[in-house]
Amino acid sequence: MKLLEDAIINQGEVLSGEVLKVGSFLNQQLDVKLLRAISKEIYEHFKDKQVNKVLTIEASGIALAVLVAEEFGAKAVFAKKSKTANVSGEVYKADCFSYTHKNLNTLVVPKEYLVKEDCVLILDDFLAHGEAVNACINIVKESGATLAGIAIAIEKGFQGAGDELRKKGLDLFSLVIVDEMEKGKIVFRNR
Amino acid sequence: MKLLEDAIINQGEVLSGEVLKVGSFLNQQLDVKLLRAISKEIYEHFKDKQVNKVLTIEASGIALAVLVAEEFGAKAVFAKKSKTANVSGEVYKADCFSYTHKNLNTLVVPKEYLVKEDCVLILDDFLAHGEAVNACINIVKESGATLAGIAIAIEKGFQGAGDELRKKGLDLFSLVIVDEMEKGKIVFRNR
Repeated sequence: MKLLEDAIINQGEVLSGEVLKVGSFLNQQLDVKLLRAISKEIYEHFKDKQVNKVLTIEASGIALAVLVAEEFGAKAVFAKKSKTANVSGEVYKADCFSYTHKNLNTLVVPKEYLVKEDCVLILDDFLAHGEAVNACINIVKESGATLAGIAIAIEKGFQGAGDELRKKGLDLFSLVIVDEMEKGKIVFRNR
Repeated sequence: MKLLEDAIINQGEVLSGEVLKVGSFLNQQLDVKLLRAISKEIYEHFKDKQVNKVLTIEASGIALAVLVAEEFGAKAVFAKKSKTANVSGEVYKADCFSYTHKNLNTLVVPKEYLVKEDCVLILDDFLAHGEAVNACINIVKESGATLAGIAIAIEKGFQGAGDELRKKGLDLFSLVIVDEMEKGKIVFRNR
């Protein structure tokens, strides 16, 4: 998606540790016009599936999830990150290691918000090592719901998780795939 | 707002410790149609002000903030919660005690996302003791931006922070004010 590639080039920042900082438009500060344009592309890709739930992870996935959910007339649900696996109540849980923060989180979704009749689109701002998305896939499986696919704003292609998901036959739709990233130089796939 | 009052009565849950659980429609699971209706009411109230930034707090304020920002053609910005006051970089910081989690957070917003030319609407899902909103007010003051007002989905009127803000002459717009809350009984102001 050219709009998003341009925003990354003009406003993104490559930090050490393979971190791409997009806080000025995609997380923390939200360029809602750009997010709406992204949402419409995601809807176009998945519109033939009967998506009624968009599942994301707090906090940076929420903004896009709510706009995408609106396109589908669906509800959005976000998994909360818990520092301990010691979560009570009727919940789905899945472990998820954060490479950014170097800690293990447990993603938690109350069972009442995801049921087997649901058709779920998993969505996140970034796909890097795939930990968060794979945890969401496990939660959807456990719920018995149908997995429509996975939508990602920025896939870090060089970290491999996206291609792994595609090999498994999952419908992964990334608006932008970054194949190389060095200070001052970002290479997009298929540009 | 009758729609929101009805959702609270039909789907809300009063828990111990004066907690009103609205996870099934306002946070964690997001009823986007209801959130859009709330956004339009907030826009109606503040439409004469030149709001170009909607400031909220992660994670539960983000969904509503992004929809309200879209109504204004504004950007949304969320304050991140940091466990330590030891935050580096050019940021605004304000302490904020969480009565729900019984801990002190520092709210952090990078200075580049809030400048003195901005006209800011502060927004949150709940107003209870006012800690988070007052921290946001301090951040807006420090930035030199204009404060358009404060929009809240659910104000817990019996905890007093809303009336304190009104006494200060601030334009506080709450969609719903809960004046009493006991197991099985919720009393709304001006219903």
